[in-house]
Amino acid sequence: MKISIIGLGLIGGSIAIDLREKKFASHIIGVDNNTEHAAIALQRNLVDQISSLEFAVKNSELIIIAIPVDAIINLLPQILDIATTQVVTDMGSAKEKIIEAIKDHPKRKNYVASHPMSGTENSGPLAAIPNLFDKKCAIICNAEDSDIKAVELVKKMYHALNMVITEMDSSSHDMHVAYVSHISHISSFALALTVMDIENDEKNIFNLASGGFESTVRLAKSSPEMWVPIFMQNSNNVLKALNNYIDKLQELKICIKEKKYNEMFDMIKKSNKIKNILKTKSLNSILWKQN
Amino acid sequence: MKISIIGLGLIGGSIAIDLREKKFASHIIGVDNNTEHAAIALQRNLVDQISSLEFAVKNSELIIIAIPVDAIINLLPQILDIATTQVVTDMGSAKEKIIEAIKDHPKRKNYVASHPMSGTENSGPLAAIPNLFDKKCAIICNAEDSDIKAVELVKKMYHALNMVITEMDSSSHDMHVAYVSHISHISSFALALTVMDIENDEKNIFNLASGGFESTVRLAKSSPEMWVPIFMQNSNNVLKALNNYIDKLQELKICIKEKKYNEMFDMIKKSNKIKNILKTKSLNSILWKQN
Repeated sequence: MKISIIGLGLIGGSIAIDLREKKFASHIIGVDNNTEHAAIALQRNLVDQISSLEFAVKNSELIIIAIPVDAIINLLPQILDIATTQVVTDMGSAKEKIIEAIKDHPKRKNYVASHPMSGTENSGPLAAIPNLFDKKCAIICNAEDSDIKAVELVKKMYHALNMVITEMDSSSHDMHVAYVSHISHISSFALALTVMDIENDEKNIFNLASGGFESTVRLAKSSPEMWVPIFMQNSNNVLKALNNYIDKLQELKICIKEKKYNEMFDMIKKSNKIKNILKTKSLNSILWKQN
Repeated sequence: MKISIIGLGLIGGSIAIDLREKKFASHIIGVDNNTEHAAIALQRNLVDQISSLEFAVKNSELIIIAIPVDAIINLLPQILDIATTQVVTDMGSAKEKIIEAIKDHPKRKNYVASHPMSGTENSGPLAAIPNLFDKKCAIICNAEDSDIKAVELVKKMYHALNMVITEMDSSSHDMHVAYVSHISHISSFALALTVMDIENDEKNIFNLASGGFESTVRLAKSSPEMWVPIFMQNSNNVLKALNNYIDKLQELKICIKEKKYNEMFDMIKKSNKIKNILKTKSLNSILWKQN
C-alpha cells in the first residue's frame, strides 16, 4: 500500500521503519516542513521520496499525520480538502480539539482519530527506531464518526505495528492521558527545573545524581514543540490532574512538617500498589475495550 | 578481611556480593532482626554466617550498617559501645542526625559516616544484585572527625565496589540529596497516588500507561520502611526542596491556565538542559571533591 507520512520525527520515522519492515507499506512518501529532517529521513531510507503535501495526499491511500497537535489542527482540514478516497489518521496525544476542528468537514468520514501510546524522550528522524510500538496500546477515538472501512484500515495498520487497539470517546481519552501521560511529563519538567535552580548556587550537584533521579527526570528531555501544544489543547484535564497531583504533594509535605510518621507510611504503602498494577499491565495482553 | 553487615536487604546484600567477589571480604557475618531475611541471605550465600550483633561486632574488622536511618540512630551507639579497634560505617541516605547522635561517643573516631549513591526500587535480600555500585558516587561525610586509618579502610572498601568517592560535610550532603534523590521519590509517590485515586472511578486506566509513566513512577515502588525515616530525619532540606518543586509546578500550571504558550515553552526548553547535564555526568568519571 502507498502511504504518506506527514512529519518525519520520532513517531513518523518509527512508524515508517515498521510499516516497511512488515510489508504494510510498499511505498512511503514523506512530508516535512523542516528540510533538514526531510533530508535525514530520505538518507536513512525511512521514506522513498519527499514531496509537497498535495502530491503526498493525492498519491497515497493512507495518510499518517505525526506532527504536534497544534499543527494537526491547522493541517488536517487542508488534507481533508485535498482527499478524495484517502484514509487520514493522526497520532496526536490530545483528541477533543482536533476532532472538534473537522467535525463538519465534508470528508470527516475519511478521518480516523487515533493515538499510539508510545514514545521516547528523544525527537527528530534520528530518534526513529524499530519496534517502538510493539505490544503497546493504540487508541481509536469516536470510531462511529468515521467510515467503517477507514477504521478497518487504521486498525490493520496498528496490527502491523503489533499494537493492542482500544476504542473510546475523545473526552475519555483526553481525561485518561492527562493522568497517565501528561502530568508525568509536567512532574519531570518541574523536577529538572527545581534541581537546576539550586545548581546555580551549588556546583557539581549532578555528580550526585543517582539512577533514581535519572529515571524520574527522563521525560524532562522531551521537546517543548510537541508538549506545550498538548498541555494547551488538553488544558482542562491537565489542570485537574495537576491540581490533584499538587494536593498529594501538599499532603506528603504536611506529614513531614508535622512528623506524621504513620500517616506518611500508609500513603507510601498505598503508592507501592502501583508495582502490582504495572506488573499486571505488562502481563495483560488482552484486548481491552471501554464500555 | 572479616566484615560484618548489619541489615541484609538490597544494599547490605549487594555490598556482600561485590566485596566477596572482589576478595575484599574473606568472611562475612550477617545480622538481621528479620529472621526470614537472614535465612534468605544465608541461603543465597550472601553471608557466611548469621550471628547476634555482639558476636558480629567482636569478630570482624569492619562493620557495615545497612538499615533504615532511624534504626541506625538507635543501633550505632550500641555498636560503638561494643567496638574496640573495629571500623564502623553506615549507608544511610541522611547524615546530620546520625552524626549528631554519636558526636560525643568515646569511639566516635572508629565511625566513618558514608552514603553510597545507588539503589533500585526493590528491597530485601532477594533484591540484592552484583555491580549495584559500579561507577556510582560514594560520599564520605565529616572525615576529619574519624580516625585517618578508619577513613582509609572505608575508602578502600568503596574502591573495591568501583565507586567514585566524594567528601563533604553532612550539612551539604543532606541538602544535596534532598534535591537529587529525596524529592524524586516524593514526586513519584505523589504521582502514583494521584493516578490510583482516579483509577477507583475509572477502571483499566493502566492499560494506557506508557513507558513514560512507568519511568516517572518507578521510584513509587520504594519501601516506606526505608523512606519515611529519611524524610523525617532530613525534613528541613526536604521541605525546602519540596516547596521549590511545588512552586515550579504552580508556575507551569499558571502557564497552562493563562495560555502563556511562550513562557511555558521557555521553561520546558530550560528543563531540557538536564539532558546535557546528565550526559556530562555519565561521561565524567573524574573524582570530584567539594571545596
